[in-house]
Amino acid sequence: MTQYGNPAEGMRDFLPKDVALRHYVTNTILGVYNEFGFTQIETPCVERIDILSHSDGGENEKMLFKILKRGEKLQFSDDTKESDVVDLGLRYDLTVPLCRFYANNRSRLPNPFKVIQMGSVWRAERSQKGRYRQFTQCDIDIIGNNSIMAEIELILATAKALQKLGFQGFKIRINDRRILECLAKYCGFEESSFQKVFVIFDKLDKIGKEGVKKELEDAKFSSLSIDKFMNTLERTTESGITVGSVYDVLPSIPKEIFNDLVTVISTVSAQAGNEYSIYFDISLVRGMGYYTGQIFEIEMEGYKSSIAGGGRYNKMIGKILQEEKEVPACGFSIGFERVIALLEERNFEIPHPKKKLTILYKEDIGNYTSLLEAAQRYREKGYSVSLEMQKKNVKKQLDDLGQRGFHYFAFFEGAFEMDIKELK
Amino acid sequence: MTQYGNPAEGMRDFLPKDVALRHYVTNTILGVYNEFGFTQIETPCVERIDILSHSDGGENEKMLFKILKRGEKLQFSDDTKESDVVDLGLRYDLTVPLCRFYANNRSRLPNPFKVIQMGSVWRAERSQKGRYRQFTQCDIDIIGNNSIMAEIELILATAKALQKLGFQGFKIRINDRRILECLAKYCGFEESSFQKVFVIFDKLDKIGKEGVKKELEDAKFSSLSIDKFMNTLERTTESGITVGSVYDVLPSIPKEIFNDLVTVISTVSAQAGNEYSIYFDISLVRGMGYYTGQIFEIEMEGYKSSIAGGGRYNKMIGKILQEEKEVPACGFSIGFERVIALLEERNFEIPHPKKKLTILYKEDIGNYTSLLEAAQRYREKGYSVSLEMQKKNVKKQLDDLGQRGFHYFAFFEGAFEMDIKELK
Repeated sequence: MTQYGNPAEGMRDFLPKDVALRHYVTNTILGVYNEFGFTQIETPCVERIDILSHSDGGENEKMLFKILKRGEKLQFSDDTKESDVVDLGLRYDLTVPLCRFYANNRSRLPNPFKVIQMGSVWRAERSQKGRYRQFTQCDIDIIGNNSIMAEIELILATAKALQKLGFQGFKIRINDRRILECLAKYCGFEESSFQKVFVIFDKLDKIGKEGVKKELEDAKFSSLSIDKFMNTLERTTESGITVGSVYDVLPSIPKEIFNDLVTVISTVSAQAGNEYSIYFDISLVRGMGYYTGQIFEIEMEGYKSSIAGGGRYNKMIGKILQEEKEVPACGFSIGFERVIALLEERNFEIPHPKKKLTILYKEDIGNYTSLLEAAQRYREKGYSVSLEMQKKNVKKQLDDLGQRGFHYFAFFEGAFEMDIKELK
Repeated sequence: MTQYGNPAEGMRDFLPKDVALRHYVTNTILGVYNEFGFTQIETPCVERIDILSHSDGGENEKMLFKILKRGEKLQFSDDTKESDVVDLGLRYDLTVPLCRFYANNRSRLPNPFKVIQMGSVWRAERSQKGRYRQFTQCDIDIIGNNSIMAEIELILATAKALQKLGFQGFKIRINDRRILECLAKYCGFEESSFQKVFVIFDKLDKIGKEGVKKELEDAKFSSLSIDKFMNTLERTTESGITVGSVYDVLPSIPKEIFNDLVTVISTVSAQAGNEYSIYFDISLVRGMGYYTGQIFEIEMEGYKSSIAGGGRYNKMIGKILQEEKEVPACGFSIGFERVIALLEERNFEIPHPKKKLTILYKEDIGNYTSLLEAAQRYREKGYSVSLEMQKKNVKKQLDDLGQRGFHYFAFFEGAFEMDIKELK
């Protein structure tokens, strides 16, 4: 039985220490993105159902929270369809709203548009550890830039944000959807089944080469294609494999796609120094069907899911806007909840917190004015000051204050200067 | 016809300049509240429908956005009731979720608990200028403190936050619900009709004394009570009237209630100096039925609605938690959207913005490494740096950059040091 106080299924209450950490992380990431010339927008959490239902969101659309029409009292009958009574939904990502925002405000936006979004999204996922029905997404996107400078800037900004949060030694995997297509074509798969092949290939991490082979066989692909695929895999997924050696195996890759990948890898490597690394990985697929070019993911040693992912999606905006022309777009998303989980695991402490002081006063103080003046004086000196009435068990009260994160305390005796002591 | 790109009815897209202002305001308020020893919590935007429907939210409950059940496909029939297909809703304020949060986490919270909440709430209001269906609320509450130090701290913190945003000379009106009850009783109104009388009295600002009189007559109250009420009004609503003179007219006011009001007014006045003022106003009612003690509102000269409001509500939490005991609680809420509107009207500029620099590079740059290094060097010097490809019409490009809020620009020529120029 759910208790009165519990939040709705899959949703969370955040206590002050949780909010403080989440704020620190969003502000740190935001600060870095601002330094890289990105600016933040906000869209409503609620969107029209037609916007949410006719996008490329795949599985996410099935997890939509739908909102009942308002106004006159709704009448239900045997003929009622869900679409008769629903007109809005909660956003399940920030990409679909970004496209709608772009359509709505394009004339007022710079071109290219370098944009930050941080906000809650909702998905009616089956509840399990680490999966929440409301969670924060943290995206940067560049719209209107078809050059690889977009990819480079997204990767550098995201890596810098992770560095500012204390992460080091992470690995950026990079690939290009068009190389995956060359690979599938080279192996003789039908173009119409590419996406199916990619979905299986995407599981390589989890099920290994044998698992991939078995799933391809179960899906009744020709044994010739499967053999060629497994064979190519052997030659292109060894650790240390380079884009160059893949190009030797798959010479059908257009020279420009190859060159762009080499440039992005070498340019990012030059900036990365010894702090993190970037490497080509032909087995990187990324689930979303909407990617059209380079794709990338960031992994931390010892953490099985990626902590950031993104890529180029040049067709999505045009498709949603029902325009003929492609609108070049590229994005990178930090897995905010995963970052928080990692920091909590590491018992991360927020650097340079404000000095927190409690002034304890007696119940019979009578006149509050000089107490309030003392508090204000210490606030102006840079302290955060909480006034607390002295309890009978002062020792326990001081212990509790220490637990709550206070650094200093003082007893108010009406004097101008107080004796500020450190809390252990 | 709604265009594809429009947000849902009554909802808003925020452009970068809007988000920047909203952030500045939330961070400023948050900074002050932290200095006063308040800590922030967050609750989910979605709550169970039983939590939202059985509270004291009055009109707000009617404006609820309700969420359809998920899971198996819903079957509708002639017998379907709304409650059969709905299990969640979007929160319409932050007070109801706070009570639920308190019930859920009480054992882990300090007592008293000084709490900040800032977040979106949703109400299906009729669309009109200045009314939105998603808007931000910004509340502080103190739970578990029955002393007037709670009222004093809420008022001082809220006033300080408004001061930090550049507001001066605002007026705090204060009253006590129990004084209003004495007034109604003194005039001979039935206790069961007090709330009705207060709702009419609350309109004094808008409809004047004659209007109030007419509405009381229309509501068929006894002419004796109405005459006595109007007569008392004459003697207690003159400008300059003090709590003391009201006490002379209504000696039935318990001495303690009178003394507490005098203490709050004098204590806040002492801290306010010439920056703002606080005065007793017997005509202050505040709509919500749940207030049990002192109530307060802040008004700005030349702005007809209040920009902050609050009061003590000792019965609400116990009632929601279905407990016998009262849980003392007191809150103050800043009208966030009104503050934003006022600042925009004043063409408020965010103080000390980060220096924004654009480095323009040529399309045929070839190697990006030294450009990226230059950008990073200026980021480390404290600039926010955006790299932009040089367009054909450089003059227009520079004009646009100025419009977008950039302060400086430089052409990248491959040199180690660039010639940074100011943008007009």
